[in-house]
Amino acid sequence: MKVLITGVDGYSGWPLALHLLQRGHEVVGLDNFVTRQRVAEVGSWSATPVLDMHERIAALQSHGVQGFRFYEGDLCDFTTVKKTLHKEKPEVIVHLGEQRSAPYSMIDVHHAVATQCQNLTSTLHIVYAMRDECPKAHLVKMGTMGEYGTPNLDIAEGFFEVEFRGRKDRVPFPRQASSWYHWSKVFDTGDVMLANKLWGLATTDVMQGVIYGTRTPEITQDWQLTRFDFDEVWGTALNRFCVQAVLGLPLTPYGKGGQKRGFIALEDSMQSLRLAVEHPADPGEYRVFNQFDEAYSVGDLAKLVLKVGEKLGIKGEIHNSYNPRVELEEHYYHPLHDNLLKLGYQHQRTLEEALEWMLSDLQRFRARLEEKRAVVLPRMDFRVGDNKSRLHIEKVAKEAVALPKAMRKVPSSGSASVSEG
Amino acid sequence: MKVLITGVDGYSGWPLALHLLQRGHEVVGLDNFVTRQRVAEVGSWSATPVLDMHERIAALQSHGVQGFRFYEGDLCDFTTVKKTLHKEKPEVIVHLGEQRSAPYSMIDVHHAVATQCQNLTSTLHIVYAMRDECPKAHLVKMGTMGEYGTPNLDIAEGFFEVEFRGRKDRVPFPRQASSWYHWSKVFDTGDVMLANKLWGLATTDVMQGVIYGTRTPEITQDWQLTRFDFDEVWGTALNRFCVQAVLGLPLTPYGKGGQKRGFIALEDSMQSLRLAVEHPADPGEYRVFNQFDEAYSVGDLAKLVLKVGEKLGIKGEIHNSYNPRVELEEHYYHPLHDNLLKLGYQHQRTLEEALEWMLSDLQRFRARLEEKRAVVLPRMDFRVGDNKSRLHIEKVAKEAVALPKAMRKVPSSGSASVSEG
Repeated sequence: MKVLITGVDGYSGWPLALHLLQRGHEVVGLDNFVTRQRVAEVGSWSATPVLDMHERIAALQSHGVQGFRFYEGDLCDFTTVKKTLHKEKPEVIVHLGEQRSAPYSMIDVHHAVATQCQNLTSTLHIVYAMRDECPKAHLVKMGTMGEYGTPNLDIAEGFFEVEFRGRKDRVPFPRQASSWYHWSKVFDTGDVMLANKLWGLATTDVMQGVIYGTRTPEITQDWQLTRFDFDEVWGTALNRFCVQAVLGLPLTPYGKGGQKRGFIALEDSMQSLRLAVEHPADPGEYRVFNQFDEAYSVGDLAKLVLKVGEKLGIKGEIHNSYNPRVELEEHYYHPLHDNLLKLGYQHQRTLEEALEWMLSDLQRFRARLEEKRAVVLPRMDFRVGDNKSRLHIEKVAKEAVALPKAMRKVPSSGSASVSEG
Repeated sequence: MKVLITGVDGYSGWPLALHLLQRGHEVVGLDNFVTRQRVAEVGSWSATPVLDMHERIAALQSHGVQGFRFYEGDLCDFTTVKKTLHKEKPEVIVHLGEQRSAPYSMIDVHHAVATQCQNLTSTLHIVYAMRDECPKAHLVKMGTMGEYGTPNLDIAEGFFEVEFRGRKDRVPFPRQASSWYHWSKVFDTGDVMLANKLWGLATTDVMQGVIYGTRTPEITQDWQLTRFDFDEVWGTALNRFCVQAVLGLPLTPYGKGGQKRGFIALEDSMQSLRLAVEHPADPGEYRVFNQFDEAYSVGDLAKLVLKVGEKLGIKGEIHNSYNPRVELEEHYYHPLHDNLLKLGYQHQRTLEEALEWMLSDLQRFRARLEEKRAVVLPRMDFRVGDNKSRLHIEKVAKEAVALPKAMRKVPSSGSASVSEG
């Protein structure tokens, strides 16, 4: 199948491209590299050295991998999206190209606005362009388990049947997000539900759990490495714990550490997305996958990192730290996740197995972690209106926070900035 | 109390200012007049001739009304919002300053993006500025009953207790909006819920029903008139039916006409908002009002217009027309609305009474309706990606659809464009 991946330069985007290419699919990638800029904005970089896109493409070619084409472009420019879809007519669009960090959205009001506006604009541009250019294509949209929050209920897959005052209906499971970023993903969900209702776009809405790992079956050599973020803004709690362990720093779960979330290995997330691609939603269908395998508390994660670390000669300790987030630190957590199993999904990689790979990869790139030691410890606070000085951000990356060209005025019939790599 | 009203130039904003001034409150108004531009964009105008703001202020002064100050400014410019709140330190902020038309949001992709981005940006700017400048102020935020959609359930006031798989919790009532505009109001609700959780902002979230009427106890003379929109983009179904009746055109309910919505008189909506202002939410409280009195179907409205019209010598007929919206045309509708009653709210004006006023006001301004006869009949379609040619929009109002200055780049310490009227 011909699959367009937006955000193909990212942590999930690149492994997904490799996985789909290996399965014989044709992959068209789109990215504007803004995540690289934004990670630099907070003084950090990827633990793994990541090739530039032209180097990635050259490496694919030199290893005889066929079927990948790349467009540099911004999803917030409607002409770019429309022209790309017009030219490529993809059968599937996997939309990963969004600002994906909760802490980044909480830096200040401008980062909040940019996160929400850019994310929903990219989604609106994609559904409008699909309507015009490829209405029969299948949209696989990346959401997050964080949309649901932590209600004192089992969490349904998107919809549930409720009874209220003697009547019953199937309605969307209530969303209770806890950052501007997480709300932006709820907004995307609303917009995609409406696009499905208006135009019948076949849609798989993926409520993604936290992804862990540095490796997939396709990532076996350095030229295939994907990024691995570890700073307090871009790294997950688990990633930070691994890096803290490798650097000999105390592991710092926020607050009591009882916050539970659903987790999935990078290779299993790729398996899930591939299954969604190869078993598309029906015309007019809107289906939701809660995409994770196991739930862990933040405290459990820290303990597991130390347990696995021991095998590799890593010793460490846990110091629970101030919680910069506004969240329950002890709560019920039991989301349902049956829909993927029906497609044949099989859990392949446990957290404990993946942690061995992660820690040894991080030991190998230890010099890169040492250089950015300062950005691992938490400094920002979701309760604070302006976190720039806490993060030592001297200069906000204008291009990262700016709303893009297309949104500054109504586009005329001007030319698109689509360039083929 | 000192009350800041954003969108003070609008249909609700101006009557609210008059009502609060009459009750002895101090009113600070903010507006950028974009609704006037946007109504012109679709070739329409207000049925009632509406004074410009400087004329409104002059009239207030010449009639000895004290206590009103006006700022011309754009809520999408954070510096404007912050400086206004810093200078005025309002005790209450009634946030009405948003794009309020579902059809306008459905014109094309750029109107969709502008509606959602501008609405959520204005809300984020207000809550961030409140956090910094007046964290104890009370936010009265205007949402819409349309956020809930039309589930086959009674609709709770914001939250409900549900049981699912043997567990119970109080969670937000699910939102199922049916236009980009209605989703933008859901997005505001999410953001305001989070701001309340992060910073404890005292919040009243008003799920407003459809407002009807041209008059309030304060609007007794021409200099007090508020706008009254009647075209297919800016007018409610009821307003269009009234104008169709006055012009001798057939009344055109969309589809079967069984679509039910909650309605409230302009003066009763002002009473409700005033009660919210005078009985603020507690510090840290987030409360929701479903603000309407009676539910009517679109078909019932058309019949009622003809019934009341007969008294005024107006004859007409009903032609059910193509439904440009994607909505259920026959459905259960029973939203709860008890919270306002607890504050002492009393329904003052029935739809039948208000219709007499509306129709006679419209007869008086019949020449203005005749001149814009072409914009009353439905031409646009929510299923169509680009409605500009159907609406005969020759030139999109750039300033109306553009995302505003503050969003184009991270603002430096430059000066605000706040000007006092």
